Amino acid sequence: MAYELYYWPTLQGRGEFVRLALEEAGVPYHDVARLPEPKGGAPAMLALMGGDTVPHPPFAPPFLKAGRLLIGQTANILLFLGDHHGLAPNTEGGRLWVHQVQLTIADLVTEAHDTHHPIGASLYYEEQKAEAARRAADFRKTRMKKFYGWFETVLERSGGNFVGGRRATYADLSLFQVVEGLRWAFPKTARKVEKTTPRLVALHDAVAARPRIAAYLASERRLAFNETGIFRRYEELDG
Amino acid sequence: MAYELYYWPTLQGRGEFVRLALEEAGVPYHDVARLPEPKGGAPAMLALMGGDTVPHPPFAPPFLKAGRLLIGQTANILLFLGDHHGLAPNTEGGRLWVHQVQLTIADLVTEAHDTHHPIGASLYYEEQKAEAARRAADFRKTRMKKFYGWFETVLERSGGNFVGGRRATYADLSLFQVVEGLRWAFPKTARKVEKTTPRLVALHDAVAARPRIAAYLASERRLAFNETGIFRRYEELDG
Repeated sequence: MAYELYYWPTLQGRGEFVRLALEEAGVPYHDVARLPEPKGGAPAMLALMGGDTVPHPPFAPPFLKAGRLLIGQTANILLFLGDHHGLAPNTEGGRLWVHQVQLTIADLVTEAHDTHHPIGASLYYEEQKAEAARRAADFRKTRMKKFYGWFETVLERSGGNFVGGRRATYADLSLFQVVEGLRWAFPKTARKVEKTTPRLVALHDAVAARPRIAAYLASERRLAFNETGIFRRYEELDG
Repeated sequence: MAYELYYWPTLQGRGEFVRLALEEAGVPYHDVARLPEPKGGAPAMLALMGGDTVPHPPFAPPFLKAGRLLIGQTANILLFLGDHHGLAPNTEGGRLWVHQVQLTIADLVTEAHDTHHPIGASLYYEEQKAEAARRAADFRKTRMKKFYGWFETVLERSGGNFVGGRRATYADLSLFQVVEGLRWAFPKTARKVEKTTPRLVALHDAVAARPRIAAYLASERRLAFNETGIFRRYEELDG
């Protein structure tokens, strides 16, 4: 039985963290909203969110259908996939640690999103450009460095090249995606900050070179970054 | 062996979600930063965050020391406590669902925080008042209703009075705290929105009446809301 991933069909966004885990796990899945209607498409996704009889309706995409389970919240989906597909340690302490790192990545992702939407997700970027300029400046000057510095420390102390030690976990795949995304959104800032985080850059490269990830990135399944996702390239926000 | 909770000593903040779970579990714990120095106080907390030899340094408080484990990220700490103290279902699907609700609560908590700090946590509220007014307006008009509406739907379909059905979980304790916090921060808005969410209000009251929670709320261990936490009362932000 193939998993069913539900996420917006035309952007990487938070769904990409799940796609990377599914690809690395090498399990069959349908990216439902990218399939043709009526079985696929965004309407199929919205039906599950708004359906009157869904016992566990997700608040927002992405969510994953795994047999009878419908699992929402990116980090929660990854917790599930990590346990089922060897993408997390087996020990309680190891599992919690990898999840802790993932939740910290989630915080950074929200902050990266809010650089272009500091006032509200229901407004266009153009309606909050002035506020975005201020928030992006704070992100460039304090927040991104703080998160990257912490990731570097985590890798320094892990006893291996990955967050949990010698084996790649879902949090490592997500770190790869964060580095990619912030290189896209803040190329100048990323170039500077990455000079101080060699281990994080090495992890990014190691993940990109994993056979299943490399095949995925070269495929049509990998969407390009664009100005509708989490990571957006607005030159004026890169300082 | 008592747990050690590490959080800012003078505010509820994110630490309060953990305090409520520890109190409901009825387990011994030290709220370390509220103990006298040198063993306690904020320095004891900061030492664990900045120490050179801490293998799993937390990015930010709260974090919990449980024997040899040091666990950070509020929802992750609750995942641990839920498993160990009967504050989460035993089934995989039930555990994931409660965690999913908790992570959605965490998103709301971040948005509530950002109503007074839309530009940056390193700046004072007074330095971002204009932006806060705009963000708070969006929060009042769209976001709070959307989250509360979802919580109400969750409770409608749970088969009981709580998120996971008939037994209270850590996510229910957190919902109590969100209702308390938003009543404090946005009294006028909360009064209006709560008219549409009778199940959420009933859950709040049921949690408040649980013997261990009631005893905790009446004790000196429960700090008052104030203008340094997540939920802050600035009259001008309540519309």
